[in-house]
Amino acid sequence: MIHTRDFQALNLVKVMETQAQKASATIDFDKNGGVVAAIAVDHLSSRVLMVAYMNREAFDETVATGRACYFSRSRKKLWRKGEESGNFQIVHEIRLDCDADAIVLAVEQRGDAAACHEGYESCFFRKLDGGLWKVVDRRRVDPAKYGPGYGHQPKKSAG
Amino acid sequence: MIHTRDFQALNLVKVMETQAQKASATIDFDKNGGVVAAIAVDHLSSRVLMVAYMNREAFDETVATGRACYFSRSRKKLWRKGEESGNFQIVHEIRLDCDADAIVLAVEQRGDAAACHEGYESCFFRKLDGGLWKVVDRRRVDPAKYGPGYGHQPKKSAG
Repeated sequence: MIHTRDFQALNLVKVMETQAQKASATIDFDKNGGVVAAIAVDHLSSRVLMVAYMNREAFDETVATGRACYFSRSRKKLWRKGEESGNFQIVHEIRLDCDADAIVLAVEQRGDAAACHEGYESCFFRKLDGGLWKVVDRRRVDPAKYGPGYGHQPKKSAG
Repeated sequence: MIHTRDFQALNLVKVMETQAQKASATIDFDKNGGVVAAIAVDHLSSRVLMVAYMNREAFDETVATGRACYFSRSRKKLWRKGEESGNFQIVHEIRLDCDADAIVLAVEQRGDAAACHEGYESCFFRKLDGGLWKVVDRRRVDPAKYGPGYGHQPKKSAG
């Protein structure tokens, strides 16, 4: 027996899934090998927090759940942002560009308010200054707290 | 005979070129086939204006000239933003992400203050609303003013 509340919840999930499919039909995933660039910005300050990629499945999940889900090109699988660290992102708004091959998500960064796997609010914590990339932001959290296997390894060049 | 002023100017160009080369040496162009994502944001509001790509040459030129220069992946050549429309971008700040494969440019959008080839301030003029992408911004300029051959053709899906 299905209770009315369960039935309503199931209907809502179905509506969200249908909306996600309608929305993703417009996006040009083919142009860049099945993915589009997805830029997460802070929903209040508009600051760019990170750039990642989404395939259709990641986009549909993001719309259906209201939480940012990306596609990891290196690991070749869905990357539910925050599943290891708790630093998930509530999606307030989704925008699409003129060519339908890039997305901007206005997000509320939860957890330790650090979108970057190195513990910064934004992945863009280095600024060009006289030919050198200088770290100009402060870390919000030491990512060691999430365990030794957390995140992808930073490149040697990212110092 | 080289005048002192010319000599100083030549020296300045050399310094800027050297700085550009030092800066681009850190960037991981290999990861994505020779280009990195470059996000232009308004230097005052932080709003994302557009997403394009840069190869090393485009990056070096951007640093050396202080004007945004991208690499057109479809036309396979440097794309000096604004060269057709006058909508060029003065670069105030350049930031690099943790993985050294994405860049944020804080720019002052000149000309008609329209970064988008469809005449909008931002390429992200459509917002997801109930499964549909709705145009929520106003055009700043009719791009027809730049001539029939202006810009790349918008996709059919970008309506």
